[in-house]
Amino acid sequence: MTEPAGNVSDTIARRGLILILSSPSGAGKTTLTRAVAQDPAWALDLSISVTTRARRPSEIDGRHYHFIDREAFEDLRARDDLLEWAEVHGNFYGTPRRPVEKVLGAGRDMIFDIDYQGTRQVRSKLAQDVVTVFILPPSMAELRQRLERRAEDSAETIEKRLANARTEIQRWVEYDYVIVNEDLQNAFQALQGILAAERLKRARRTGLAAFVDGLLAETP
Amino acid sequence: MTEPAGNVSDTIARRGLILILSSPSGAGKTTLTRAVAQDPAWALDLSISVTTRARRPSEIDGRHYHFIDREAFEDLRARDDLLEWAEVHGNFYGTPRRPVEKVLGAGRDMIFDIDYQGTRQVRSKLAQDVVTVFILPPSMAELRQRLERRAEDSAETIEKRLANARTEIQRWVEYDYVIVNEDLQNAFQALQGILAAERLKRARRTGLAAFVDGLLAETP
Repeated sequence: MTEPAGNVSDTIARRGLILILSSPSGAGKTTLTRAVAQDPAWALDLSISVTTRARRPSEIDGRHYHFIDREAFEDLRARDDLLEWAEVHGNFYGTPRRPVEKVLGAGRDMIFDIDYQGTRQVRSKLAQDVVTVFILPPSMAELRQRLERRAEDSAETIEKRLANARTEIQRWVEYDYVIVNEDLQNAFQALQGILAAERLKRARRTGLAAFVDGLLAETP
Repeated sequence: MTEPAGNVSDTIARRGLILILSSPSGAGKTTLTRAVAQDPAWALDLSISVTTRARRPSEIDGRHYHFIDREAFEDLRARDDLLEWAEVHGNFYGTPRRPVEKVLGAGRDMIFDIDYQGTRQVRSKLAQDVVTVFILPPSMAELRQRLERRAEDSAETIEKRLANARTEIQRWVEYDYVIVNEDLQNAFQALQGILAAERLKRARRTGLAAFVDGLLAETP
């Protein structure tokens, strides 16, 4: 009998997963998400949200967002075709369900950078497929320094973000894993361990039963 | 305010876990367990079993086993002081519960190399603390080659081990994770990822609530 070439484990079919990162603003969620999504070794797909807000000159339709009108958005929502959605400053944002189902069914994984409310919505729809990670800052002093260092916001906005952070931080109790992001490299490695482990979970490896049947059918 | 020295995450109290490896004989469970237990970077404790069988000249009491008489064994069992036990060829073997509880309570992890029956027993007693990993061979032909290569057994014994392996292999469905051990280095890394991830699980990190309270008490 011929042995399969390469890694046997990689030939075993698997259901994909959704890695959800949440954190208060400034704790590093966006930096981590980008680092992870851009590293081809992780092989993660990003989902492209739909939004009703106007496209900015720096944005490409279908790449940064799918820009749709309010009627189309409400249609998607009414058909339960959004995994999660939110209204921010009068604009609607959402994650279409079908492209995600397609990616997961093909055994590929996705990364979502969403808040606890979005996380709850996705979990309620795809509980077995989500792996949720909460990123905490090592201290509030460090969180303030990071917000100040990125020099994007006015002093007033920073105070508001810090006040919001205090509320958001308390959502850690709803997540599977918690990473204290003191050092980006360490946090990146921690995430890598989580992804590697979750990919080995029996329950996701839909091809294992057939693989074991193959083993037992061998006459060694 | 002073920042704690070193890694903040490491200062957060955690409940230890029991990493359980099971596999049919020849699939690499014992090699993997030894490699993992002997690597100080993993910081894993091995549990020392009690047994009623006679000490061999090559064994040290309290290191390889605690050698006890049958009455003492039955006493332990009657007091529910064994996490798991089994009778093999008329001798009794068991894992005392108290040393394990002590190690877990101190936030240290242990590794157990036991079969599916032992796994069931430990899970029924410490469900939240166990992480179970099943090791599969890449093929039955490879399993046979490994058993032959280690040249420990007669041809007859090898046939018996292979027949047993067919039954044992079917227990993969009861485990959290499955690793196909095609290459020891890869299997070792997969285990490392599982351990790293499980250590970051919110539910084990008993000190997180206090850590977050500390964050919220800061006046940044």
